[in-house]
Amino acid sequence: MRILQRDLQDHIGARVSISGWIHKKRLLGGITFINVRDRSGLTQCVVKDEAEVEKLRGMQIGTVVTVEGMVVEESRAPGGAELHEPVIDVLVPVTEQPAIEVDKPIDHKPENQDTLFENRALNVRNIQEKKIFKIRSSLNRYIREHLHSQEYVEIQTPKLLAGATEGGAEVFKLDYFGQEATLAQSPQLYKQMMVGAFERVFEVGPAFRAEPSMTTRHVSEATMLDIELGFIDGHEDVLNAVQDMVYDVLTRVYDEHADDLKSLQAPQLTLTEKFPRFTVAEVHELYTKATKEDTTTEKDLIPAEERWICDYAKKKMGCEAVFVTEFPVEAMKFYHMINPENEQTVLWGDLLFRGLEIATCPQREHHYDTLVEQMKSAGIDPEHPGYKYYLEAFKNGLPPHGGCGFGIDRLVQKTVGLQSVKEATLFPRDINRLAP
Amino acid sequence: MRILQRDLQDHIGARVSISGWIHKKRLLGGITFINVRDRSGLTQCVVKDEAEVEKLRGMQIGTVVTVEGMVVEESRAPGGAELHEPVIDVLVPVTEQPAIEVDKPIDHKPENQDTLFENRALNVRNIQEKKIFKIRSSLNRYIREHLHSQEYVEIQTPKLLAGATEGGAEVFKLDYFGQEATLAQSPQLYKQMMVGAFERVFEVGPAFRAEPSMTTRHVSEATMLDIELGFIDGHEDVLNAVQDMVYDVLTRVYDEHADDLKSLQAPQLTLTEKFPRFTVAEVHELYTKATKEDTTTEKDLIPAEERWICDYAKKKMGCEAVFVTEFPVEAMKFYHMINPENEQTVLWGDLLFRGLEIATCPQREHHYDTLVEQMKSAGIDPEHPGYKYYLEAFKNGLPPHGGCGFGIDRLVQKTVGLQSVKEATLFPRDINRLAP
Repeated sequence: MRILQRDLQDHIGARVSISGWIHKKRLLGGITFINVRDRSGLTQCVVKDEAEVEKLRGMQIGTVVTVEGMVVEESRAPGGAELHEPVIDVLVPVTEQPAIEVDKPIDHKPENQDTLFENRALNVRNIQEKKIFKIRSSLNRYIREHLHSQEYVEIQTPKLLAGATEGGAEVFKLDYFGQEATLAQSPQLYKQMMVGAFERVFEVGPAFRAEPSMTTRHVSEATMLDIELGFIDGHEDVLNAVQDMVYDVLTRVYDEHADDLKSLQAPQLTLTEKFPRFTVAEVHELYTKATKEDTTTEKDLIPAEERWICDYAKKKMGCEAVFVTEFPVEAMKFYHMINPENEQTVLWGDLLFRGLEIATCPQREHHYDTLVEQMKSAGIDPEHPGYKYYLEAFKNGLPPHGGCGFGIDRLVQKTVGLQSVKEATLFPRDINRLAP
Repeated sequence: MRILQRDLQDHIGARVSISGWIHKKRLLGGITFINVRDRSGLTQCVVKDEAEVEKLRGMQIGTVVTVEGMVVEESRAPGGAELHEPVIDVLVPVTEQPAIEVDKPIDHKPENQDTLFENRALNVRNIQEKKIFKIRSSLNRYIREHLHSQEYVEIQTPKLLAGATEGGAEVFKLDYFGQEATLAQSPQLYKQMMVGAFERVFEVGPAFRAEPSMTTRHVSEATMLDIELGFIDGHEDVLNAVQDMVYDVLTRVYDEHADDLKSLQAPQLTLTEKFPRFTVAEVHELYTKATKEDTTTEKDLIPAEERWICDYAKKKMGCEAVFVTEFPVEAMKFYHMINPENEQTVLWGDLLFRGLEIATCPQREHHYDTLVEQMKSAGIDPEHPGYKYYLEAFKNGLPPHGGCGFGIDRLVQKTVGLQSVKEATLFPRDINRLAP
């Protein structure tokens, strides 16, 4: 019967069996020590018996073993106990030296990232690296738990589409039984349609963008959380819904993964229940005043401003998540709602966290006639079959609604404190990378 | 301040505001009645005032309204209360008659399915139809909660691949920045690789199969649950893991959605904690004996046997979920493990539920050399770049493991009692359908 490393302490003085990978092997004063890794941690085994040492000859890191031995208290061993007088059973021998050393810190320097991704299946065996993806799993879990508690219905919408989801952006195309199909850039149209039935919906899934540039912020296949919320009283309701989710999820992950985050040298969390909100114009003004670099004629935020405003809010308001609102109409998508109080701006807020845009959170135009006009202005043909069903949903009555496209990869990146969104992704895809 | 229909009972005698869609409208004895649908149910509003009746003139089903009125107890109204003396605010008028009647039962007959999918955004507004997808959302939720409780790590793996996941099956191909890419048929290779780091992983996501046939069981884009579990003692551990999850999830959904399932005329749940297990040979023998149709020379199960064995187990053993094991080697995939006790069969079990295969649950071959041999026998080139990283993971040590590919759409179908997997899918994809 296998026990896990974390339970060793309960078996002091007894013989138990552990299973895992040889994670480290060293010879010290004539004695062989091996660390065996299982999903809960590392077990140190003290191998003195010659026949047992012999079994380890030529066995490389990664060799899969079962070790039966006596549990002995040892304060210097991980978990405060180690195995003595072990009997080793090699389940799967590894005889070639692995391409990278998994028990050493993984180097995340930009120039090493190709090696990182090339050897991903190996480097996630590293104790530290693995934590990034356990935190990612928890973030996904807490997000869904929060949304279920708010009565959102999880939906799964198709990634194979007859038309592009959003005008203009780069799409992947493929042959679908003789017909041209595109890969969904987002569930945008579907989630809006589903507000008509469920009021509140969400989806977590892949989003495909034929993004030809190489940046630390973009991948051609991202994991996106899409939320849509009906019967809002105004744009504020959308921002509040996203804010409450992010506050809940981040405080929870910082609580339940405190040790992991500390050991990864993640920044401390500085968050208030209500996130500060600035208009784009206010950010330009504040930034220009502070840096003497004039951005007041810029329409959008420049990346330096995204970083600056988060630092500013952190210092002045104790919150490193902020909403920037009232983006200029020049940047709008056809499905955004123009601000009725200032038609030069859109009811669209971006959530920034630690200097990076994590989510776009607009209110949608829900009036059929206005929507059709906005499509035409954007150069999109409302008669295109890809929009037929979408427009029908508005004809059939959709309430005021809004939502967000939320980058899961980016949230993981910024939570852990990584340089690139790709480091937060198990197998990132970009213009140069389609494998592993 | 909006309240929901389900909370009306708490406000008897008070004036409240509800918001939703006009779901039904009728004139009875000179009085206009409207039912307003929100996400919790239907509110009956009794409209007598002429000015208010006038507001409803020409307003079709789907019109979005806020109704402010007095809550009056009324045992014949849904929820035991209705609104009197309403003041209606039309938020979004619907002036064209919807293509289908959403307050009438939706007809699921095979010949009506095109109409069903063509008008999906409208027919999920139907109270009954909507329940199917709320149950689907809950099934997804309970599955994840179960897997988290068993220490599985949720992963997200790429759908854009350099090579086909599994030899032979139909794949969609596309141009990826000048390189040929395929759409993942499953996360098979990735989840196996990740066992090397996390031991236990799962993923819920789309799987793409260029399936040229039209059946009630297949779609070209399915939602699959993929599970992989390391350090198993044998194939039994895989079957047990899937069995315990399914038992937990189904009993929970039948408990928490009891009313919904009853109103959908879903079959009663007949399940034992341990699911009966039969080998393929045993099913052939039992079926041949019972029906006089000789299937003993068949290698695989025929669909009639899948239905028959579930009925048989339900009647004889009180369980309508069964495992069928020891599939013949002729049907194996290269990554399956051949049964060491009978080399004509594979350590592969199918989970059948109510007559349909829901999941395939094999043990994997984890020995590098054997795996390479099996690839060659299957006509797959182990040197193909699509398998490079996969094979490296085995060289670096993978423990005994197994898992399942589990059809979420099929689980929903069979839980609710639908004829086709497509009815359990919001926007199904098949050879003839790429929209909506």
